[in-house]
Amino acid sequence: MTPALIAAARDRLAGHARVTPLLSSPFLDDIAGRRVLVKAECLQHTGSFKYRGARSAISALDPATRARGICAASSGNHAQGIALAAREMGVPAVILMPSDAPRIKLENTRAYGAEIVTYDRATQDRDELMVALEEERGMTLVRPYDDPQVIAGQGTCGLEIAEQAQALGVDRAEVLVCCGGGGLTSGIAVALSEAAPGFKVRPVEPEGFDDTGRSLVSGRRETNPALSGSLCDAILTPSPGKLTFPLIQAHCGAGLAVSDGEALRAMGLALMRLKLVIEPGGAAALAAALFRGNDLEADTVIVTASGGNCDAGLLARALELQ
Amino acid sequence: MTPALIAAARDRLAGHARVTPLLSSPFLDDIAGRRVLVKAECLQHTGSFKYRGARSAISALDPATRARGICAASSGNHAQGIALAAREMGVPAVILMPSDAPRIKLENTRAYGAEIVTYDRATQDRDELMVALEEERGMTLVRPYDDPQVIAGQGTCGLEIAEQAQALGVDRAEVLVCCGGGGLTSGIAVALSEAAPGFKVRPVEPEGFDDTGRSLVSGRRETNPALSGSLCDAILTPSPGKLTFPLIQAHCGAGLAVSDGEALRAMGLALMRLKLVIEPGGAAALAAALFRGNDLEADTVIVTASGGNCDAGLLARALELQ
Repeated sequence: MTPALIAAARDRLAGHARVTPLLSSPFLDDIAGRRVLVKAECLQHTGSFKYRGARSAISALDPATRARGICAASSGNHAQGIALAAREMGVPAVILMPSDAPRIKLENTRAYGAEIVTYDRATQDRDELMVALEEERGMTLVRPYDDPQVIAGQGTCGLEIAEQAQALGVDRAEVLVCCGGGGLTSGIAVALSEAAPGFKVRPVEPEGFDDTGRSLVSGRRETNPALSGSLCDAILTPSPGKLTFPLIQAHCGAGLAVSDGEALRAMGLALMRLKLVIEPGGAAALAAALFRGNDLEADTVIVTASGGNCDAGLLARALELQ
Repeated sequence: MTPALIAAARDRLAGHARVTPLLSSPFLDDIAGRRVLVKAECLQHTGSFKYRGARSAISALDPATRARGICAASSGNHAQGIALAAREMGVPAVILMPSDAPRIKLENTRAYGAEIVTYDRATQDRDELMVALEEERGMTLVRPYDDPQVIAGQGTCGLEIAEQAQALGVDRAEVLVCCGGGGLTSGIAVALSEAAPGFKVRPVEPEGFDDTGRSLVSGRRETNPALSGSLCDAILTPSPGKLTFPLIQAHCGAGLAVSDGEALRAMGLALMRLKLVIEPGGAAALAAALFRGNDLEADTVIVTASGGNCDAGLLARALELQ
């Protein structure tokens, strides 16, 4: 993974991915006690940064391979990103989802044009189903983070952060990134290592599910004890990726962790002060900026608001805290 | 009011006003039955387009006049725009507000750095108080819409709409603008008359408060029967402005009107599908695009989401409709 791969991804995404705004509010600066800049990836196509990596990976395939179609296993933001990017490029996409996934996620992914294949988590093996798609239909699997072109696509977000923050006069900052498997974190970190060497990326995770933070301490890929039990479902992953972790190790500072309550309060403040809908997992970095200031050093903190796909009930809960 | 005045305002606003994104969602296109592009002015500084006009007017003053300070009478978005723009330029601002204005509006405006002077609506005359500020303190009154430099500032939003829509391949569209006194409507209309002649601006107002729509029919400035009774408080004004109405007459198509219920439903859809907080008055144009399609002609409709300053309770009501 090199800055050159990210620059090439940016060229392929030009005119397709949105250049999302870098927002701020004096009210949030007051709470944080420092300048807070918010990269609003919730405004990206499909409501999360995942579209960048999906479009990057699909557009990097040779045309004959691409024409046979794309497959992915996801019930979340990666599925929607793959579905839309594939439809835009005129190629079929099949998404494997557990049959008990929330109906709204199945419907949204189908609405973006993908074929959904559901499986029973109790009786069927997802990996076997995936192999069948790859071998029988000749489709190409796009993984959610352990894929160089996916990481390169997420890295384009970092190039935008560098340019937008530098235009505001910022040349030193901590960049807090909501971290699941580490695709966005590693992509931004590699991009900034060249484009903004005064910016230090730090992963932010849910408390109790801080596999990346613990891995940075121990020096090896640690595993989470469970894969449910946090509101921040979009960033609950078993462990840092094989490709992403060495990049995170090479380029990132120490991890941070936030509670569900802090994520919810950050969601409420984003609604009222930034006019943005952020999902819990996408609000983790903002929560760290606002409520974990003692763990931060820089005068300016840049946070990714990495996704906004959450249901009305959860938004209502966040509003009740305002 | 000329396109040249708008171009000059754009130069003065460069690096200060945000270039807000032009967003879309396939889910909204499906509801509308046509392509819908949303100019997200709720993401502008202070949460509404009003910052543009305020900064344009204050920056157009000669330095000596400006240094004596700015005054305005507003309990809404204009007050916040003036407060922030004045603070940024290092000049004092006094905002006259009724003492029974919602506390959150007083607090927000004060937080942006303005001095608030409250008056009792029952016993005090606002215009007399304003004259005192102008004469005793030598301050310059900036009106919310009947001021050429305010209209020019709002017009910069139109220049962005032209460029952003043209970059998406759109050369014919109806542009629906949430319309109160008509500053944003007339500014955008004048800007587009030169920058995108295939775009037709149409004002959108609350049902029962469609003074501009009725004025376009009768050919003279009609008045609303009341100034309260709609959720869309940000765009409730007595009548079209003296300066704005002739511009609207010269450049705009017929008006549209939406109900409070339609505005609330549009707010809910903006939350879920665009990840944006829009206030009721800022959702009127989106509501017309989504629910008044029979009154529209173009294959592409562009709407202003002109502001996002609303309280948590109203957002919760909008969410309940989802």
